[in-house]
Amino acid sequence: MNVQEMARQVKEASFALGATPLELRNRALKAIADALKDHKEDIFAANARDLSAGAMLPAPILGRLSFDDHKLRDVTEGISGLISLPDPAGKILFKRELDEGLILTKVSCPIGVIGVIFESRPDALVQISSLCVKSGNGAILKGGSEAKETNRTLFSVIYEAGVRAGLPEHFASLIEDRAAIEELLGCSDSVDLLIPRGSNAFVRHIMEHSDIPVMGHASGLCHIYVDKNADPDMAIPLIIDAKTQYVSACNAAETLLLHKDIADVVLERLKHASGQHVDYIPAQSEEDFREYLDYKMTTKIVNDEDEAIAHINRYGSHHTDCIITEDEAAAERFQTLVDSAGVYWNASTRFADGFRYGFGAEVGISTGKLPPRGPVGLDGLVTYKYRLKGNGQIVGDYASGKKAFHFVDLA
Amino acid sequence: MNVQEMARQVKEASFALGATPLELRNRALKAIADALKDHKEDIFAANARDLSAGAMLPAPILGRLSFDDHKLRDVTEGISGLISLPDPAGKILFKRELDEGLILTKVSCPIGVIGVIFESRPDALVQISSLCVKSGNGAILKGGSEAKETNRTLFSVIYEAGVRAGLPEHFASLIEDRAAIEELLGCSDSVDLLIPRGSNAFVRHIMEHSDIPVMGHASGLCHIYVDKNADPDMAIPLIIDAKTQYVSACNAAETLLLHKDIADVVLERLKHASGQHVDYIPAQSEEDFREYLDYKMTTKIVNDEDEAIAHINRYGSHHTDCIITEDEAAAERFQTLVDSAGVYWNASTRFADGFRYGFGAEVGISTGKLPPRGPVGLDGLVTYKYRLKGNGQIVGDYASGKKAFHFVDLA
Repeated sequence: MNVQEMARQVKEASFALGATPLELRNRALKAIADALKDHKEDIFAANARDLSAGAMLPAPILGRLSFDDHKLRDVTEGISGLISLPDPAGKILFKRELDEGLILTKVSCPIGVIGVIFESRPDALVQISSLCVKSGNGAILKGGSEAKETNRTLFSVIYEAGVRAGLPEHFASLIEDRAAIEELLGCSDSVDLLIPRGSNAFVRHIMEHSDIPVMGHASGLCHIYVDKNADPDMAIPLIIDAKTQYVSACNAAETLLLHKDIADVVLERLKHASGQHVDYIPAQSEEDFREYLDYKMTTKIVNDEDEAIAHINRYGSHHTDCIITEDEAAAERFQTLVDSAGVYWNASTRFADGFRYGFGAEVGISTGKLPPRGPVGLDGLVTYKYRLKGNGQIVGDYASGKKAFHFVDLA
Repeated sequence: MNVQEMARQVKEASFALGATPLELRNRALKAIADALKDHKEDIFAANARDLSAGAMLPAPILGRLSFDDHKLRDVTEGISGLISLPDPAGKILFKRELDEGLILTKVSCPIGVIGVIFESRPDALVQISSLCVKSGNGAILKGGSEAKETNRTLFSVIYEAGVRAGLPEHFASLIEDRAAIEELLGCSDSVDLLIPRGSNAFVRHIMEHSDIPVMGHASGLCHIYVDKNADPDMAIPLIIDAKTQYVSACNAAETLLLHKDIADVVLERLKHASGQHVDYIPAQSEEDFREYLDYKMTTKIVNDEDEAIAHINRYGSHHTDCIITEDEAAAERFQTLVDSAGVYWNASTRFADGFRYGFGAEVGISTGKLPPRGPVGLDGLVTYKYRLKGNGQIVGDYASGKKAFHFVDLA
């Protein structure tokens, strides 16, 4: 069966899945978590085959590829957390009487079918399929080929447990063939949203080669601007945290903008700061305004706040940017004028994360301008529809003036 | 100057525009409405030149092209209505204390730069530029070449009045050259959203040839399903309204699905219904499941509700679809399972409209799955950002367990 037909099957199933009550979806999630624990030996054996086939891969990739007791506990705990979250679908966003007996309700509902393409981590397969079950969306999953055996085993455990618990057949589907990705990108009839997880180049490729909306970020070039009225005692640990707390994260800071009046003091103290060594590299050219994902940080001295803001809007990735200052008006100006999903005042850019925002789950982080923007929780996997209930109302009566709308919000 | 540079200028201006207080934006709108009235003779003279140059155009196009006292009143009344609407930007969507002194606020903000490409109606230029001013977005406008003189005059009146009232220079820009459209489609660095208004083929072209998100609808293939438990006295006028109240609208019904038990009665009564004659065309092939925008309607007899729902999800445009029934369970099933922006029960599909939904203004109607979906009001021209305010918090303290989030919603 080709990808197009498979996607069509998931699409058909997604209508039934979207109509299931929360109680059934939660019960299925519980069954999935239990099945993962029950089949852990099969899963670990499959993972051992992947690890042995990939023995020549670099250590960080092997680390991501490995699926052990620790990762199993993480994903099953993640599922328990998901079960406890409220239903993102079926929320009444507003309810309005347009006229007597004519009631408009805006209600959240699943998006439909989500295509998720992820690289080496097999735990992503469990996370994303459980997020889709919770939100009532069909899922098409494509994992990295190096995790083929693990993904196949994880998927079959999840799929069988889900169907046995009452989810419709084809509620999710696994793609194994790498060439199938390009086919999937063309399935705009069946797939409503793509979520790529992987390197910047990989995400950019997906964004550029599909008509399907993509949720994600191709890069995370976050800035810290140290204003002239910054408190250096606050600035130093904050810069170091934003840079080094997890260097390969998209919300790690990459460029440090320093007001000319405070630059010397801050740079001097950073040089002597304890902890992990960071290379602070004075900007020489536009090439230096880049995402290092390493213990390196470009520094640039600016004449005033407006220059810092213009720099961020021009070179940034609209992800998360921070001003350090004691001056409330400068902070307000920065947070208003910087065009990023996260605009921070005196807090590390590393806070940009669905869990740290209190969303309970994270679907991803989007640097697109349209919603969902920034860290996206379960609410990013629903859209809405308008339900209108009448008793035979026709527009002709309102056009002729025989009747008139009165618009009363009921909820 | 090329389009890329021009778009960059509007982008720069959009940051300042987005930071203007509502009072200034409303004052500018008032100045624009006054200037349009003050310069009406210039505008009418420009319009007369377009009408005379286009004398050979078909009558309906000339009707759309004409800009007279009546249209002037419509657009200036539209601006007055806009002034009275609340600010879509700056709304606090939530406010949450993540930990003591660490406050996250999700706040609505303008999208940035909106590119609007519209065909012959010059009134669209006024509507869309005033929607952009109200919402704090920069606007790049491209009108139909047949309305060139009118558009140029309208734009210069609007632009000069806006700048004089205090809006930043380059808050809006007009493109006159048709070839420039293709250039605009490539300006994804500066343009955040495209809103094409015109024929289905035109909108589809825009959607397929740009990486910029597009808000709109390429087609409106709306259905009415007459359930076996429908009241024919309600069904007949409702079907006729949905089909004929304005046949060229995207929310006019195009396909009539009839339950086999009631089909004969309904078709017989439709045949003898008074008013505008409609051709009811029994479906012969998939080709008949199309958007007529005319006094024609495809009819198809179905065995049950599920067949109707499957038909709509397969052939529809996910715009607006209606069930006529007295059976509440059937209505609930239809409204849950039909995958459209509008799912109606006993009301004409023609109600799918921003003004009839009580939005006060309509930006357009979107058939995309992701928000904004369906009729889009002023809220469709804003996105949001996350403002985080701290006093030096770093993520390391939360990762180490020294501190913990407590998540208290403040608003």
